[in-house]
Amino acid sequence: MTKTRIGVIGGGQLARMMAVAAIELGLDIKVFAEAEGSSAQIAATMVGDYTNIESIAEFANTVDAVTFDHEHVPLAVLRELEARGVSVQPPSRALEFAQNKLQMRKRLGELGLPMPVWAEIRTAAELQEFLGDNGGVCILKTPIGGYDGKGVRVVRSVQDASDWLSAEGLASVGGSLLAEEKVNFVREVAQLSARRPSGEFKSWPLVQTTQKDGVCSEVICPAPNASEATIAHAAQIAREVAEGIGVTGVLAVEMFETPNGRLLINELAMRPHNSGHFSIEGSVTSQFEQHLRAVLDMPLGSTESRAGYSVMVNLLGVDDQNDFVGSLDAVLTAHPQAKVHTYGKSPRKGRKMGHVTVVSDSAEFALAESHATVAALLDA
Amino acid sequence: MTKTRIGVIGGGQLARMMAVAAIELGLDIKVFAEAEGSSAQIAATMVGDYTNIESIAEFANTVDAVTFDHEHVPLAVLRELEARGVSVQPPSRALEFAQNKLQMRKRLGELGLPMPVWAEIRTAAELQEFLGDNGGVCILKTPIGGYDGKGVRVVRSVQDASDWLSAEGLASVGGSLLAEEKVNFVREVAQLSARRPSGEFKSWPLVQTTQKDGVCSEVICPAPNASEATIAHAAQIAREVAEGIGVTGVLAVEMFETPNGRLLINELAMRPHNSGHFSIEGSVTSQFEQHLRAVLDMPLGSTESRAGYSVMVNLLGVDDQNDFVGSLDAVLTAHPQAKVHTYGKSPRKGRKMGHVTVVSDSAEFALAESHATVAALLDA
Repeated sequence: MTKTRIGVIGGGQLARMMAVAAIELGLDIKVFAEAEGSSAQIAATMVGDYTNIESIAEFANTVDAVTFDHEHVPLAVLRELEARGVSVQPPSRALEFAQNKLQMRKRLGELGLPMPVWAEIRTAAELQEFLGDNGGVCILKTPIGGYDGKGVRVVRSVQDASDWLSAEGLASVGGSLLAEEKVNFVREVAQLSARRPSGEFKSWPLVQTTQKDGVCSEVICPAPNASEATIAHAAQIAREVAEGIGVTGVLAVEMFETPNGRLLINELAMRPHNSGHFSIEGSVTSQFEQHLRAVLDMPLGSTESRAGYSVMVNLLGVDDQNDFVGSLDAVLTAHPQAKVHTYGKSPRKGRKMGHVTVVSDSAEFALAESHATVAALLDA
Repeated sequence: MTKTRIGVIGGGQLARMMAVAAIELGLDIKVFAEAEGSSAQIAATMVGDYTNIESIAEFANTVDAVTFDHEHVPLAVLRELEARGVSVQPPSRALEFAQNKLQMRKRLGELGLPMPVWAEIRTAAELQEFLGDNGGVCILKTPIGGYDGKGVRVVRSVQDASDWLSAEGLASVGGSLLAEEKVNFVREVAQLSARRPSGEFKSWPLVQTTQKDGVCSEVICPAPNASEATIAHAAQIAREVAEGIGVTGVLAVEMFETPNGRLLINELAMRPHNSGHFSIEGSVTSQFEQHLRAVLDMPLGSTESRAGYSVMVNLLGVDDQNDFVGSLDAVLTAHPQAKVHTYGKSPRKGRKMGHVTVVSDSAEFALAESHATVAALLDA
């Protein structure tokens, strides 16, 4: 018998979009939300503190497998769940690397995978040395707790990082920082894939991603003008990461593409990811459906594209009033092809409030129409 | 400001699939279900009796517009809601015709629309005369209460209808029956469309439908080998019905296609309909999203197809145990392109438990794969 009950820890938009996929297929989804009124409240069966093992264990007891909307559940909690026999997908031994960027770099190095030059930094002297070896500039990251550009800084001198390098600063991020070379890249790409506990692996087409202030703003599927070699290499990297780290469910590998065509791994996400939202309309199987299938160890669906191009553009909050739903009326007449998604979140400037996808055999149309729809929503 | 709160009366699979569309767009959907544990329970905010005006009025008070999962809410209740200022979509003046097939035939006649020869039957003599005029056979229908083949009978003599023609039988269906010629058709087709209260109208491509024991079993979009004239005529018929009757939201017009290419209106449904389930994956805008947009008087989305062909096959219950979700594991490996939908309903033989859609540029593949997936689910 197929296991059919999924528990998602975290009530954000990823859990919300997983709920849609669960309803369509007829799987039973329950969400453990951090607060009332979450984006995924329609499927929320418990509200509580995800760092509390007893709360999480009580929730886990109602489902066949536990998965995640975010990476913030403490490893100790995950390991204790596993010790109690809960199916945690992805497992703690994989999530460890999603939670700690230094551990991730070390593990990717052991696997021989391509990435920027990096170093663990514990002192100003180590940072000074790394800057000297890398043209006087680097990307400095806190190994834990960062997301959407937070915990990431371009650094040109030790003074730029004096707060992080203080005893207090270091203590708050686990004792050290991660320095990476500032890669000279021509663009960023992402490779979305999924893997079942029993081993089946499938990847979507490579996509091109554009970040704005550290937040994903646009995704084009497939990545325009990618060579066959690059496409094959990206899929191979994703497979080696998933198998090497033991990832189950959806994995997003964000990469830099360099002027000479190399791919360097930037970040990993072991869950549905903003770079895969296009797949709701753009692919035969969306990342959300695939994630549910994968974590329940069900057969994976086709990742083929439904049309030539899909473009996704994020809809970021402008203030604490506009949820964009209220202005749909004024916007959609001119954009009948646009698929608008909003997340039911309280508005806040810069917050991910929704996204728009346009699928078309014309890349130009998909690009123009998705951006025009977002622009109209922002203006309305 | 866009109105964003929709109330659906009835908790069946249509309300369930409307809930998915509402979550995606970020609209607020509430369902008035007839019982706990309904197919649409994830969005159910009230459980009660839909013939009770006070319950329904209390529910209507929480939303901007009320729409329906089924046609069974009494006209008196609908009219009272309207009298109290509730936006009922479609309105009672349209639903009147969905609830009573005799009224529908009369109204379609006034509109000059093509349909089978028909007559109102109050006595055995009238039925005898109709049989005599129509080759000794007719389709006899109860004007109210029928669906999915119930309340419909092929009649070759007055004896075949003696129960319905008894004083008691007639009283239970409103005093008369509807007799229709048994149309010699080459196939059945359906025209799906949507209309906003403010007038905007859009139709999907004409589809071919196949019924088995009075229940929809297969839908092919677009209807294979339909002539340009037939396609245009079908869309024109739908527009004339929608405008002539004042339908808002989705309208499905089921029609016979005769050997000489005529279209004759069989049935109307003023809500999302089984003949439109293909649109979830097959169209830029699904019938469920379009229905929500239409009843809120929002701009309608594109009804273009996403690929050459979509084929939908219904998944009917085999017993009171099998919900099909439990056998997904055994089935999906061989069918990675199939989109399986199940409705979370208690299993029962013959009950609509779910459906499978396959979208492809090859009609042969879409047909073969959708049927193979359903066959595998039935066998598993």
